[in-house]
Amino acid sequence: MAAVGAAAKGPYKVQSAINPDIASERTAPGFPLEKLVNLLDGGAERTRIRRAVEHVVNGDTVFSRENEYFLTPTEQYELAVKRAVHLWQKMKELGWMDDGPELQFAYRIMGGNLAFGVHNGVFIPTITELGTDAQIAKWVPLAKDYQIIGTYAQTELGHGTYLRGLETTASFDPSNQDFILNTPKPSSIKWWPGDLGRSANHAVVLAQLYTQEKCHGMHAFIVQIRSLLDHSALPGVKIGDIGPKMAFEHVDNGYLILQNVRIPKENMLNRHSEVTSDGRYIKKSFDKINYIAMVLTRVKVIASEMVIPLSKACVIALRYSVVRRQSELKPGEMEAKILDYQTQQQKLLPQLATTFAFHFMSSSLETFCNQVKVQIKSKGDASSLPELHALSAGLKALISDACSAGVEVCRRACGGHGYSKLSGLPSLYTRVVASCTYEGENTVLQLQTARFLIKCLNKIDCGEPLPQSVSYLYEPVTSHCSAKEKSDFLKPFIYIESYKHRAHRKKAISIADALDYPDKQLNSAIGNYDGYVYQRLFEWVQKAPTNAKENPAYEKYLKPRFRLAQSKL
Amino acid sequence: MAAVGAAAKGPYKVQSAINPDIASERTAPGFPLEKLVNLLDGGAERTRIRRAVEHVVNGDTVFSRENEYFLTPTEQYELAVKRAVHLWQKMKELGWMDDGPELQFAYRIMGGNLAFGVHNGVFIPTITELGTDAQIAKWVPLAKDYQIIGTYAQTELGHGTYLRGLETTASFDPSNQDFILNTPKPSSIKWWPGDLGRSANHAVVLAQLYTQEKCHGMHAFIVQIRSLLDHSALPGVKIGDIGPKMAFEHVDNGYLILQNVRIPKENMLNRHSEVTSDGRYIKKSFDKINYIAMVLTRVKVIASEMVIPLSKACVIALRYSVVRRQSELKPGEMEAKILDYQTQQQKLLPQLATTFAFHFMSSSLETFCNQVKVQIKSKGDASSLPELHALSAGLKALISDACSAGVEVCRRACGGHGYSKLSGLPSLYTRVVASCTYEGENTVLQLQTARFLIKCLNKIDCGEPLPQSVSYLYEPVTSHCSAKEKSDFLKPFIYIESYKHRAHRKKAISIADALDYPDKQLNSAIGNYDGYVYQRLFEWVQKAPTNAKENPAYEKYLKPRFRLAQSKL
Repeated sequence: MAAVGAAAKGPYKVQSAINPDIASERTAPGFPLEKLVNLLDGGAERTRIRRAVEHVVNGDTVFSRENEYFLTPTEQYELAVKRAVHLWQKMKELGWMDDGPELQFAYRIMGGNLAFGVHNGVFIPTITELGTDAQIAKWVPLAKDYQIIGTYAQTELGHGTYLRGLETTASFDPSNQDFILNTPKPSSIKWWPGDLGRSANHAVVLAQLYTQEKCHGMHAFIVQIRSLLDHSALPGVKIGDIGPKMAFEHVDNGYLILQNVRIPKENMLNRHSEVTSDGRYIKKSFDKINYIAMVLTRVKVIASEMVIPLSKACVIALRYSVVRRQSELKPGEMEAKILDYQTQQQKLLPQLATTFAFHFMSSSLETFCNQVKVQIKSKGDASSLPELHALSAGLKALISDACSAGVEVCRRACGGHGYSKLSGLPSLYTRVVASCTYEGENTVLQLQTARFLIKCLNKIDCGEPLPQSVSYLYEPVTSHCSAKEKSDFLKPFIYIESYKHRAHRKKAISIADALDYPDKQLNSAIGNYDGYVYQRLFEWVQKAPTNAKENPAYEKYLKPRFRLAQSKL
Repeated sequence: MAAVGAAAKGPYKVQSAINPDIASERTAPGFPLEKLVNLLDGGAERTRIRRAVEHVVNGDTVFSRENEYFLTPTEQYELAVKRAVHLWQKMKELGWMDDGPELQFAYRIMGGNLAFGVHNGVFIPTITELGTDAQIAKWVPLAKDYQIIGTYAQTELGHGTYLRGLETTASFDPSNQDFILNTPKPSSIKWWPGDLGRSANHAVVLAQLYTQEKCHGMHAFIVQIRSLLDHSALPGVKIGDIGPKMAFEHVDNGYLILQNVRIPKENMLNRHSEVTSDGRYIKKSFDKINYIAMVLTRVKVIASEMVIPLSKACVIALRYSVVRRQSELKPGEMEAKILDYQTQQQKLLPQLATTFAFHFMSSSLETFCNQVKVQIKSKGDASSLPELHALSAGLKALISDACSAGVEVCRRACGGHGYSKLSGLPSLYTRVVASCTYEGENTVLQLQTARFLIKCLNKIDCGEPLPQSVSYLYEPVTSHCSAKEKSDFLKPFIYIESYKHRAHRKKAISIADALDYPDKQLNSAIGNYDGYVYQRLFEWVQKAPTNAKENPAYEKYLKPRFRLAQSKL
């Protein structure tokens, strides 16, 4: 409690120096600190880049997170748009690439409070994956230049998991050479797409394709939904924000109603199938290709939306546990740091260990995912797709559950102050927990992985080869644990053996059981996030919230860019 | 999806009739419905009262919850004050008593979004418990008439659990016959008291009593903190709202800094101890009495803040699971209700069963609590206090953990829509989970109960009698489960036997293990709460949020009442 904020004007003298309890914990760590930092960053060069990005972001007032807990949802949305446009300008100025590490680090430092996540992360990649070269050449440059903002409209009010049940239709009209799009029932209203509610003027709409009076299943169509001149909804389009959510207030998740909206024939994304001018349907490649975009997104969000939030929560909670003192263990002594209590260690240290395990796990999944992507793109070989699907589904479910639970453990371990938004923890929880639901609901994903495992068990019965990640099912298992003494439990192979044993016993009910958890419990914090709970609380005493101004994000940030696109479309 | 809202103006025709899937579930329940309703309400007369209260509350626009998810925190606070004052007027009008069942039912129907919870639930009871008859006669009528609003200022920025560590001081000055109150360090700032940030003009302040240069531990003092004329902070008082929280936005949790604030000698609550005019300290009754208010509050919140929210979440999630359909189980058939899936049943039915178990458990705890209160008040017999403390601590921790987890299960079982505030579920979670922390942090409470059980085990070793609730530790246990067939697991005594067995094996580590869970799993919903997720979402499409007006709750609702008190104090 010695250092609770610089330049306080209250009745107390406070210092801006580092809290002595924090400082003492930082002296003489039991491992080479910089080596660990480099390992987590992915190499010394990436550490250098991260620090450079931190310097840029932390020194820029537009990116300041100081007042974010006092903004209305509308103000949060406006700020997210402002930041996204500002970041885009910074990137051009500093030469950061779209797929470079700088952007990932910047996103992490800003806590992901940026607009256009679906535009950049799903709309553009979907066109790249499902569009022809001509379609990519037409749409992607406009999108990357923010002359159009797009969303990905798949989920409907009454349909999420069961994609075949989507009710939106796209019917080909040969007389006009166009498609007519409709959301025919309330349950078919597009619901949840990010960037849709207030920002997007285009959408990739997933709809049942009808031609020659036959349904050919779900296909993707680019639909303009708002005017490029005045941002009003186009005729036949009803559109808006879906209202208040548990978190993600800065994202304008939206709804979309389409009534006889006509789009030109060339707006169907045509890389894998097309409709001829006389209405014949031609399939150009295999069925499952539409699902790849979803798998890619699922893998991407594991690190950024699940593991990073847990690591931030660990940093905040561990730092607080060093500063907060409670109860004299011996009468007359100073109260003890709460981190020195076993109960607090039993809460927090497993969460810290988990961030390390999941960090390396998600890295190896990303590597595998990139391999599969190359196989498909360069050789047309999709044989690893079922394994990637099962691994990404099972790991997404496992990691999102564990990270959500872990953030809550960290939050509650900070007592009452963990309930204050100023601790940073409530927002981490309400946001990370969304990952249990989006990009595949966890129960459904677990069943998908289970189905893959059952198929593998059938292969064993037939003596067929197994995918690499489940090859252990062919390996012999020991019937007894080979640990002889306490220290043996620090050896990862003991765990691998046990997991194998369990998988064999359970006949591989869950792939999660069979994975290798690196067993590291480190006593120190790993980042530089906003964990000074006391300082934030005390700063709050010095000032009042300001939440007045109205939010014209479109007028301020988007209008001039959108007008550029008008002449080109 | 057939009925998603009355009088919709969108492109779809919707009906206001009851959803046919809901209607079909309601036909022919497998048990006498009204009998269950009466049992849960506490008798047919209470059912009648509840329905009458629902009629009053639901028919009153001030109590309408329609726009509550679109209000800013300031607007939520203003509405909570408006409702509290309006309810107080209604009560006088309708003859509802402070301690009558009507108020409990009204609170439940409004989801607890009322101001003055600490004023009514803690400030007044604390004066009643710790004040002399003269003090009660002076303060309680003013408080009950809302001429003063009080808070209970115990927790400090750096001290919650460890009460002996509280740093606020009250020093007796015999020359002035008054106490001087100080919060000498940042860590001693009073932090969290409800109703403090914007409403209260008085506080029961818990402070270390100093007289004749000796500390006599924590005592309670009534301190005026704001002017009764213009609501400004009094000299030496710094006061405000603690800022944004995970929920409870309608409550003005506050901070309080005291610098040499003098209060008259008679403002120390004197029932159990006092300071003479020459500064001698006199203890009039036993030490633990200050803790009784906390135990009483802890017991009270179990039903209203834990069990009721879980029951509401069950109603919302079960109702949604009947309306939401997903996947054709047979090709061409209608998609199945998600409640018909085993995975959904495995999520929701245990939560429903838990609400019944906890409902009866909290009722019996309340009965026991009232007995102990009478014993203490009428006979001065506090021998059951340790048992009440252990039971209430252990049950509070068990029930708040399980209800929080259960509400989250219900929320996630509703998929994406469970993430929309319009489902009612996010707010139920962010609010119920606070109960794991307030009124005794759960880990600390579990350790308190464990300590009680260890003491009981020591008594067994000495052959001493045990308190009634742990007398099973003396009873013989069977070594094998006596269940022979499936249906035996419907018999509660099987569970009691097993719990006993486990308690004996674990040497009573946790009292939770030893309790009797009634084993009822009922397939029907139990109330009439806002669970029409689709309807809410669809209504939202029809209109935009309104959150403009500024909030002068004091000017509008409180000023005239406070001025009444000025002449009397």
